[in-house]
Amino acid sequence: MTKVSMGNQPLVFPTPAWVITTYDDKGRPNMATAAWGGVCCSKPPCVGVSFRAATYTHGNIHSRKAFCVCVPSERHVAETDYAGIATGRETDKFEVTGLTPCKSDVVDAPYIGEFPLIVECKLFKTTELGMHTQFIGEIMDVKTEESLVGESGLPELHDVAPLIFAPRTRRYYGVGKKLADGFSVGKKLFK
Amino acid sequence: MTKVSMGNQPLVFPTPAWVITTYDDKGRPNMATAAWGGVCCSKPPCVGVSFRAATYTHGNIHSRKAFCVCVPSERHVAETDYAGIATGRETDKFEVTGLTPCKSDVVDAPYIGEFPLIVECKLFKTTELGMHTQFIGEIMDVKTEESLVGESGLPELHDVAPLIFAPRTRRYYGVGKKLADGFSVGKKLFK
Repeated sequence: MTKVSMGNQPLVFPTPAWVITTYDDKGRPNMATAAWGGVCCSKPPCVGVSFRAATYTHGNIHSRKAFCVCVPSERHVAETDYAGIATGRETDKFEVTGLTPCKSDVVDAPYIGEFPLIVECKLFKTTELGMHTQFIGEIMDVKTEESLVGESGLPELHDVAPLIFAPRTRRYYGVGKKLADGFSVGKKLFK
Repeated sequence: MTKVSMGNQPLVFPTPAWVITTYDDKGRPNMATAAWGGVCCSKPPCVGVSFRAATYTHGNIHSRKAFCVCVPSERHVAETDYAGIATGRETDKFEVTGLTPCKSDVVDAPYIGEFPLIVECKLFKTTELGMHTQFIGEIMDVKTEESLVGESGLPELHDVAPLIFAPRTRRYYGVGKKLADGFSVGKKLFK
């Protein structure tokens, strides 16, 4: 159990690889990849994503007060990585990737038609932390493919097949096998 | 690409299953599971986790201004689930699970000796969002097992083998195969 110290760095597993979509001031859709993000409240349902001030997305969220969290599946790994390298200031990432910007019916941000899970957010809170600004969005709607909705009315994680990103080592992984049911497997430890 | 609407709910994939460790007012170690969390800044390195005000951990973080994010591996799925069901107000979860509380050398919070990746945090910012309070911790150190440190000086995600949690459907998954290298696979899309 002896541990070795690696210093103060943003290293924790797992982090997501989400593609955040916004409109710029001219109404042009943009996309940018974020691994710095997570759900942060159940009521109102909120998800946070962080961007550096230098990014095009940072300005877009400030102006439009909205963004979508688009969850790629494994087959979109190259497009997801590209969206994290290129800048929307100079390129139309939708055109380059061939992905389709769709108009949201609830927020002032586009979403990616080909991606299996879409979380549409209105800006709820902005927090300056240092190198990154955290944008917390209130989730106004969640959308998925009709073919992915199971008996529960929800998509299963293994069908969405989202990407997992490993910070620092910078690798993308898929999701593996189901291990256990939550709020269930731990009950055997109650005495 | 036609999407179906599932309404406003905290549903996005993937989310982590982290065990957050704290001391209470008497110095007794506690642990609680969090899926609402994520990295939110690179400099200073910060990670956020959210808890309801009713939880024991919420009060502990308020008092002690510190917590550790302990990343379980697949073999700890039952203990991780248990730590999210039981309350530290009534039970000693370390005693029940048999896991070992270790003293941190940098923050006023314990960590779980058996877990492969430990992120030690001082409270940096507290944000009230609604049902949940978001606690943003500044990462003071990251620790791992000596046997997990590879040539890069970092542990590989597939060796840590963290848990993935699926909100709403409430299932735990493992991490699957490596798909691609980041800041690399997307370069082929540049024209």
